[in-house]
Amino acid sequence: MEFDEVLIKRRSIRRFKQTPVEDEKLSEMIDAARFAPSGGNTQTLRYYIVRDKHAVEDIFKHTKWGANVAPRRNPVWGLSAPPVFIAVSAPRDSSPQADAGAAIQNMMLKASERGVGTCWLGSFNPGKTAETIKSAPGEKIIFLVAVGYPDESPICEDIPAGHSTKYYLDKDDVIHVPKFTVAAITKWI
Amino acid sequence: MEFDEVLIKRRSIRRFKQTPVEDEKLSEMIDAARFAPSGGNTQTLRYYIVRDKHAVEDIFKHTKWGANVAPRRNPVWGLSAPPVFIAVSAPRDSSPQADAGAAIQNMMLKASERGVGTCWLGSFNPGKTAETIKSAPGEKIIFLVAVGYPDESPICEDIPAGHSTKYYLDKDDVIHVPKFTVAAITKWI
Repeated sequence: MEFDEVLIKRRSIRRFKQTPVEDEKLSEMIDAARFAPSGGNTQTLRYYIVRDKHAVEDIFKHTKWGANVAPRRNPVWGLSAPPVFIAVSAPRDSSPQADAGAAIQNMMLKASERGVGTCWLGSFNPGKTAETIKSAPGEKIIFLVAVGYPDESPICEDIPAGHSTKYYLDKDDVIHVPKFTVAAITKWI
Repeated sequence: MEFDEVLIKRRSIRRFKQTPVEDEKLSEMIDAARFAPSGGNTQTLRYYIVRDKHAVEDIFKHTKWGANVAPRRNPVWGLSAPPVFIAVSAPRDSSPQADAGAAIQNMMLKASERGVGTCWLGSFNPGKTAETIKSAPGEKIIFLVAVGYPDESPICEDIPAGHSTKYYLDKDDVIHVPKFTVAAITKWI
C-alpha cells in the first residue's frame, strides 16, 4: 500500500471484530517496530504478543479506554474487545518512552497497512500485566497496544489553533478526531 | 512509494548534502507528524522549522552526534552539516516523550519517502535552542530532528539476541547498524 494512504488511514480503534489476527501479521508488526530508531541504537524494548484468551481477558480487565468517548465506546469483553495485546517492556531502570513511541508508531502503521486496527494504551495495570505474561524480572511493562480487526471507522477532522481537541461520538456512533492543521502547530524560522 | 520500502529505507543520516530542502517537503513532514496519535488526543507538540543559516549554525554548535561513530562521522559545518533543524517543543510542565517519538517517527518516514534524510537528536542544548528560535515562554524544546539530503547510505544488519548493538564505520566509511531480529525481541503468549 502507498505510504501516504497508510499514514492517513491509521486511527485508534476501540471496537474490534472477534476474529483472531494471523500470527504472520503480528510478526510483521514487530518487524516494523524493530526498524524504528532507538537512542544509541541500544534497542532495549521487548515485545510480548498475547493471544491466549485468558491472558488477554486478564489484561483487558485492567485497561482504561478513550476518556472522551467512555463509557459508550468502551470495548466489551466477548463483543468488541481486542483479541490480542502487544505488551511493550523496557529495562526497569530505563525510560525509553520516546523510543517506544517511535517503535509503536511503526507497529501501528504496519498493522494499518495490513487492515488490522490498533489502540495504544497508557492506562493499564503494569504489575498485573507483568504477572499475567510472566515478563522477565528486570523488565517493566511500559505500554500496551490493543490489536484486532477494526469494527469502526473513526473520522479525522482538521481544526485551527485554539480549537478543542476533544474527540467525540456522533449520533451514528462514529468517532470524530479533531487534528490541528500544519499551520496551527508550525513556526518557520 | 510502497510503505514497506519507506519503513526499511529510513536510517539515521549524519552526513548531509549542502543543498536546501524544499519548504513543501518540510511542510509534508509536519503534516505526517500531526497524524500520529497523542495521549488523549491533546496534541501539545509544536514544531519550529529552522532554515535560517545563522540559526541553524547556532543550534548545530551545541549538538552531539552518534557516539559510536564520533568523531569520524561528526557532521562538519559548511561541509556535511544539516541545512535544516526541526525543533520539537512541548508545554514546560509536560513529558510527552512517547507522543513525540510517534510524531517524529511519522515525520522521518515521510522525509525518507521524499528522499530526505533525518537524524533524531536528543543531545543538544535546549535552552540555547529556545533562545535561537525564540520559542514561546511556556514551551521547552524536547528534541531536534536534523534534516537534509543524505550524503551517506547506512546499512542495516540482522543480529541475534545477546549480540552487540554498536553501530560502526567500515573501511569504506559506510555505517553499519545492527538490528535485533524479531525472534530476539519477541515472546508469544
